[in-house]
Amino acid sequence: MDFNTYFELVNLYNDYAMACDSDRWEQWPEFFIETGTYRLQPRENYEQGFPLCLLALESKGMMEDRVYSVKETLYHDPYYQRHIVGAPRITSVEKTLDVERICSEANYAVLRTKLDGESTVYNVGFYRDVIVRTAAGLKFQSRLCVYDSEMIANSIIYPI
Amino acid sequence: MDFNTYFELVNLYNDYAMACDSDRWEQWPEFFIETGTYRLQPRENYEQGFPLCLLALESKGMMEDRVYSVKETLYHDPYYQRHIVGAPRITSVEKTLDVERICSEANYAVLRTKLDGESTVYNVGFYRDVIVRTAAGLKFQSRLCVYDSEMIANSIIYPI
Amino acid sequence: MDFNTYFELVNLYNDYAMACDSDRWEQWPEFFIETGTYRLQPRENYEQGFPLCLLALESKGMMEDRVYSVKETLYHDPYYQRHIVGAPRITSVEKTLDVERICSEANYAVLRTKLDGESTVYNVGFYRDVIVRTAAGLKFQSRLCVYDSEMIANSIIYPI
Repeated sequence: MDFNTYFELVNLYNDYAMACDSDRWEQWPEFFIETGTYRLQPRENYEQGFPLCLLALESKGMMEDRVYSVKETLYHDPYYQRHIVGAPRITSVEKTLDVERICSEANYAVLRTKLDGESTVYNVGFYRDVIVRTAAGLKFQSRLCVYDSEMIANSIIYPI
Repeated sequence: MDFNTYFELVNLYNDYAMACDSDRWEQWPEFFIETGTYRLQPRENYEQGFPLCLLALESKGMMEDRVYSVKETLYHDPYYQRHIVGAPRITSVEKTLDVERICSEANYAVLRTKLDGESTVYNVGFYRDVIVRTAAGLKFQSRLCVYDSEMIANSIIYPI
Repeated sequence: MDFNTYFELVNLYNDYAMACDSDRWEQWPEFFIETGTYRLQPRENYEQGFPLCLLALESKGMMEDRVYSVKETLYHDPYYQRHIVGAPRITSVEKTLDVERICSEANYAVLRTKLDGESTVYNVGFYRDVIVRTAAGLKFQSRLCVYDSEMIANSIIYPI
């Protein structure tokens, strides 16, 4: 791993977090390739190899639908969220003439603040990601969020 | 961005956090240039373009006054604080013969522990910084802390 | 500090955190050299120079005993833990023909989730580490966890 690639990877994680924390939902699908997947899975299911997820979006199109529903149709009490993400832990790198693919993990905590309320720990867990290089820089081929916080306070509306 | 500059920037963030978390308040103004500014602003005002801040210190001298008040005059129940800061997200770099200036952001969470109490989420948000190179290394020209935690538990006494 | 060493150090921190957060306790002593030490000390004692620790393991053998007790003998209510660790703050590097030794610190927060419960702030503080290069890569010669969270919710069973 050279510094430039590491720095790009950290930036991808940072840009993703900042978009999600700044209510710029329409930017969120842009972090994925067209066939990218986003899954949000409780740790219990993950550890036992069960496939059930709280949310499983299997293309960028499904993510765009999700953004529409967040912005236009889901009735919810708005809240701020704030991601604190650990340094990426790179588990494999594949680099050929045709493809550059990085597998990476990172612990995260999402803190939630409701208007006129205290900031609380909302959702914690780890990301398990496959990232590929595209003409537009690094993008997620898949992002799996495995969360410890199996008892969810209300609902998870915004992307983790 | 080369590794050395990135490493210096991460160190600036780390040293700042460690000084604030170790009650070494008198070191805090030293992270700023003489004309440096420190502002602590609720996210609601920031997002709507309103100027009002909880705290706006417009020179290093004002920061030194603040340190004096923290140490000598502000009546408060002492607490520990602990910063967990995400990786810096560099938004621009300007480098000429005369000046080197970095604009950077980072999410943060400050956890508070009162003596004989539990650790709780105290203040979360993001830093928006302008950093310049001086003869004594990187310093803040401005640090703006935009906080989600608009309902403040008691007061914010120590620097965020 | 060159990028490769920094990257190795970040990986050591990440791998340690991920082992502790994934219930792979038997891996935990492997992050230390044979004569390595692990101590968990309240901040109050640390700051006043008192030696008393909540836990002081003075060899890798003692850590293996601790792992055995965590897995086999300590009666406790299981919980998930999740480490969010700041970037390492390197305080000294010593590099000779015979030895490579890094002193480093990092703020951490460990978030706990009990089954069917909410995620809460469990233990926050900072690591103060001495790390040495071995034939098997970087290892801890000593890891001291100084924790702000002096009032402990129940007990600390798993490694911080």
